[in-house]
Amino acid sequence: MSLIVVGSMAFDDIETPFGKSNRIVGGAATYIAWCASNFTEVRQISVVGGDFPSEELNALRDRGVNLEGVQIRKDEKSFYWAGRYHMDMNTRDTLVTELNVLGDFKPVVPDSYQDCEFLMLGNLAPSVQLSVISQLKSRPKLVAMDTMNFWMEVALDELKELFTKIDVLLVNDSEARQLSGEFSLVKAAAAIANMGPKYLIIKKGEHGALLFHGNEVFFAPALPLEEVFDPTGAGDTFAGGFIGHLAKTRDISFNNMKTAIIVGSAMASFCVEKFGTQRLREISHQDIHERLHQFVELVNFDIALV
Amino acid sequence: MSLIVVGSMAFDDIETPFGKSNRIVGGAATYIAWCASNFTEVRQISVVGGDFPSEELNALRDRGVNLEGVQIRKDEKSFYWAGRYHMDMNTRDTLVTELNVLGDFKPVVPDSYQDCEFLMLGNLAPSVQLSVISQLKSRPKLVAMDTMNFWMEVALDELKELFTKIDVLLVNDSEARQLSGEFSLVKAAAAIANMGPKYLIIKKGEHGALLFHGNEVFFAPALPLEEVFDPTGAGDTFAGGFIGHLAKTRDISFNNMKTAIIVGSAMASFCVEKFGTQRLREISHQDIHERLHQFVELVNFDIALV
Repeated sequence: MSLIVVGSMAFDDIETPFGKSNRIVGGAATYIAWCASNFTEVRQISVVGGDFPSEELNALRDRGVNLEGVQIRKDEKSFYWAGRYHMDMNTRDTLVTELNVLGDFKPVVPDSYQDCEFLMLGNLAPSVQLSVISQLKSRPKLVAMDTMNFWMEVALDELKELFTKIDVLLVNDSEARQLSGEFSLVKAAAAIANMGPKYLIIKKGEHGALLFHGNEVFFAPALPLEEVFDPTGAGDTFAGGFIGHLAKTRDISFNNMKTAIIVGSAMASFCVEKFGTQRLREISHQDIHERLHQFVELVNFDIALV
Repeated sequence: MSLIVVGSMAFDDIETPFGKSNRIVGGAATYIAWCASNFTEVRQISVVGGDFPSEELNALRDRGVNLEGVQIRKDEKSFYWAGRYHMDMNTRDTLVTELNVLGDFKPVVPDSYQDCEFLMLGNLAPSVQLSVISQLKSRPKLVAMDTMNFWMEVALDELKELFTKIDVLLVNDSEARQLSGEFSLVKAAAAIANMGPKYLIIKKGEHGALLFHGNEVFFAPALPLEEVFDPTGAGDTFAGGFIGHLAKTRDISFNNMKTAIIVGSAMASFCVEKFGTQRLREISHQDIHERLHQFVELVNFDIALV
């Protein structure tokens, strides 16, 4: 029941209609690890600079996250991103991107990671994602990957190669449309299935998420919240909850993926309540349990189909 | 188990990215009646001109819709609306509105309608909706109403009076925001509850619908479709399925309202598949049954909450 997580660990400056974070710790793999470590053992693959706080790494170690695969380049700087959200919190402008250590990142999979059954490729250059897959001596039981529109523009061939090597692709609705050239998400899902991924998750932010597999489809709503404080990392947290639940249960049936999507949605609903990873650090298993119960109440209904 | 439906019966000219309808029959009460008559006896209150096809009225009569409360003004013209949908099918421009017979409509509730337990006030001038309520000798078991942004701008006082006399208010997300001055739909729902309605349904089109009652909330998705051909009437059809199911079962518990929202969503998913009321006229009880089963598959999941 162990999971390899690949992705960025970084600094973010975030501006929302509700306030400004100062330089805080972020990055896809950071969010995925904080989330997935609630459910399973996490083995992290990433790269940080000498400026990355050792207490942040220790906090992850204390949660049982294995950091052997995290390279620390003492004389360099960590990846840095600054962004500003619009009033609707669904759109944002990138203000600054400094790749720093991420620019020439060559991931190395430690020997101790080789027996992992689950692999979560967080959003990162497709070449880095491919490199991790090729270093694994046996194929994991399940490989999931996230990506973004930027890679569709600059590295489409590598993305398409990846699609033939993975099981689950996670993208948002506009990325699904861009990738497929189809406006209808049902048609987009069919077109993307032809590219390789057996399972497709389309994230729609506050409008929930769809899971497609063959002719089957499942929908999970986002929890209606009084306030979305900071959406940064919600997609990564969703991915962490999804793959974390699968790794914990070791059951990759479509039925269990439905549950995993609900777990991902529940975890994402915590993430947006505060800046950065703050809320994910606070929540207990009891909090998660109660939030999952809210999802049951939110969508379950009785119907007599006679 | 009978239901009074109040609303427009009209002609529409619809333009979508997929094509143009010629002048076809539409209007809120037309859609509601075609839909709700699958579930319960419908007693219609509306007004049409001498140009309204008698075969359209006969087709409704054949489904058991009582038209005693439909005024026919032989020398006048029916309400007419022309609109054009944008590519996303979520937004539309009104090209023409001709009120005609609707301009000075004075509804008269026939004596034979007085014992109705359920009242659905389709989108119409609030003064007309109020007039129907005041003509009823005993209050129905449940009163639901739809409205739109236009009435919030020109008849807010009458709307607010209505809100104190009804049980269920149906609006879309932008109308809920306009009415409450709140961006968050959770906050909007709380503000609108303070205006009177005990139940609030916020329709989000392709993003589903939310039902609020006190601290409880339920979410129903829209069925992911390959193509949305014509969204006209989908909200009215949703309302017809919702109130039709409640009238059929005579159970107005929150739990049964959840099921009613799913029924409404299922019916709306048929409506958008063809122009106007065409698809609603074709479907059988077996089709409805199968569509409801698709909703069960779409949202039901197993979770062990231990």
